[in-house]
Amino acid sequence: MTINPKDPVAVAQALIRCESVTPEEGGAQTLLEGLLAPLGFTVARPTFSEPGTPDVANLYARRGEGAAFVFAGHTDVVPPGDAGRWREGPFSGAIVDGELYGRGAVDMKGAIACMVAAAARRPDAAPVAFLITGDEEGPSINGTDKLLEWAEARGERFSACLLGEPTNPDALGDVAKIGRRGSLSAVVTLRGVQGHVAYPHLADNPLRRLGPALAALTGEPLDAGTDHFQPSNLEVVSVDTGNPAFNVIPAEASLRFNVRFNDRHTPDSLKSLLTERLARALGADAFAIDFQPRPGEAFLTAPGAFVDLISDAVEAETGRRPALTTGGGTSDARFIKSYCPVVEFGLVGQTMHQVDERVAVADLETLTRIYERALVAACGG
Amino acid sequence: MTINPKDPVAVAQALIRCESVTPEEGGAQTLLEGLLAPLGFTVARPTFSEPGTPDVANLYARRGEGAAFVFAGHTDVVPPGDAGRWREGPFSGAIVDGELYGRGAVDMKGAIACMVAAAARRPDAAPVAFLITGDEEGPSINGTDKLLEWAEARGERFSACLLGEPTNPDALGDVAKIGRRGSLSAVVTLRGVQGHVAYPHLADNPLRRLGPALAALTGEPLDAGTDHFQPSNLEVVSVDTGNPAFNVIPAEASLRFNVRFNDRHTPDSLKSLLTERLARALGADAFAIDFQPRPGEAFLTAPGAFVDLISDAVEAETGRRPALTTGGGTSDARFIKSYCPVVEFGLVGQTMHQVDERVAVADLETLTRIYERALVAACGG
Repeated sequence: MTINPKDPVAVAQALIRCESVTPEEGGAQTLLEGLLAPLGFTVARPTFSEPGTPDVANLYARRGEGAAFVFAGHTDVVPPGDAGRWREGPFSGAIVDGELYGRGAVDMKGAIACMVAAAARRPDAAPVAFLITGDEEGPSINGTDKLLEWAEARGERFSACLLGEPTNPDALGDVAKIGRRGSLSAVVTLRGVQGHVAYPHLADNPLRRLGPALAALTGEPLDAGTDHFQPSNLEVVSVDTGNPAFNVIPAEASLRFNVRFNDRHTPDSLKSLLTERLARALGADAFAIDFQPRPGEAFLTAPGAFVDLISDAVEAETGRRPALTTGGGTSDARFIKSYCPVVEFGLVGQTMHQVDERVAVADLETLTRIYERALVAACGG
Repeated sequence: MTINPKDPVAVAQALIRCESVTPEEGGAQTLLEGLLAPLGFTVARPTFSEPGTPDVANLYARRGEGAAFVFAGHTDVVPPGDAGRWREGPFSGAIVDGELYGRGAVDMKGAIACMVAAAARRPDAAPVAFLITGDEEGPSINGTDKLLEWAEARGERFSACLLGEPTNPDALGDVAKIGRRGSLSAVVTLRGVQGHVAYPHLADNPLRRLGPALAALTGEPLDAGTDHFQPSNLEVVSVDTGNPAFNVIPAEASLRFNVRFNDRHTPDSLKSLLTERLARALGADAFAIDFQPRPGEAFLTAPGAFVDLISDAVEAETGRRPALTTGGGTSDARFIKSYCPVVEFGLVGQTMHQVDERVAVADLETLTRIYERALVAACGG
């Protein structure tokens, strides 16, 4: 191992060269263990399993005693798609014109490299921990959620967490995320009675309920937003009947939707609200609603000492105080928030999940310094 | 051939024993030729073909010169389904408790048997013709439509037509059909832009157009009905998206509908009306509409001399003057109406297309007498 752990570019290149598409570990966590152990970290690598999902490797590392400041992230990446469409190989880690190419460059091997470099440059900072999963881009079942349970069961405690997801839309310093909307999905079955289109009075077309069902679900806003959250939003993502015959009135139709909701709601309060709205519009017997398991809760790390600590670190290095937002998709912060305050700040996300994902080499150095400042402010050193 | 052509029960049994599920001829038309030729009919049996559809056998028979009174019908039947669920074999022609069992008993081998018996009992009635297809229950492409063209090309002319579909809901004498609604089907594609549910502002969910599209198609009546027709009716029969992912906004959705329409509309006028309604609701670029080929036109044989002739014959035998209606599904009358006035009167349809399709033996004798009266009134003898 000749990688200098204080050099985030070298570490990021080495991580990108590990083909760790979910659920493959691809050598990425072995690489991290090799870098962190010499820095004084005790490293554990639990693998979690669940029927129906692949086993996934996770890594937990700690230095020092007491409630730790946690760097959290994931070594798994989404598939590269057609590798031939990339300017540089998706697992090459090539640097061209000041940019480092590769799947995971911004989401989020680059940020993990900055965390390692920060910990290496501040060898006395403690207590500090790394909470690293290989199941963030996949089903997220054998990942951070279980790793936190596992750590708690071993007596691990956390003071605060910095999660390195790519939060910045355009430039380092734009945005820190202090919360995330929740997510709830459901399948609604509209019931009817099959029949011939020529005799509609003898049938009961479930698709006649579709307009009222859509109006019930989307006609009235769920809320007007809050100080830190945009309004909750429900999207109908699929309506399906599967009836190939123009002369047949179908017996059933299904409607699938997802809600991204703010902290005015919980999954349970939303389930009640939406079920009631449908029942009022259709009648309770005219439909069934099946909510998908494991909804995501909305959460907010309210502005205060820890959020300021992160904002100060960003401002000191970029000259800009980041906007504090809660938009976008879910992240593993939804699990971490139950254990300690969590803020997300990482690289510029423009190319994430795309062909030619890449990061400015200069950003890796800047983010390392931000992480150094946060680390020292949080736990000394 | 020992079947007495004057006995509708014997003829019906023999026809039912021919397994003539569309497109199979099953011996049914050979049987008819054998019965009609000795009665003075010149019989032709053209087979029609079209790429993508099975060849189908048809029969045309004429007795006498000049514009003929036509008995029209079909020898093909729908499949019996699970033969084990029948009380008597679906092709047995068994008589139990005064009822003749078998696929086609009412739809419409029974009625064809009555037509043959009427022609046999009135050997001097002329000019009279039989227009019999084997493609009414199937795609109706190689059937009555082509048989009429074929006959016209040979100089055949018709004064009026009696089609033997089962028109009576409960008892012989209930209903004669003097017209039928038209039928038009279409697929509407709602266009959008795919995206992630967490970022709906970056996508354009085509399912947000579904409510307005449904309202445009079904919100306003197409008409209020006419003297002889019920209001036109549009049924949405399928809405499909095929999106399995709760976190993805789909790019497209499709909606399939069928309209059963009265004589206030033509297929072309309806196409314009519905396209305009959708364009007004959605914008012209937000959707595409593809109408299915070969729509059915609505038609009406206005009450008058020929309708009275049929009604008189029914009343003389049943003591009841039939209601004159235009409801229900399409029939081959939609083709015949372009050549001559057409009225439909046949058996009681309660068991048509069902397990244990059957007809009261007494009804076969009564219907034969009705057909005899109509035949004599239409062309003497």
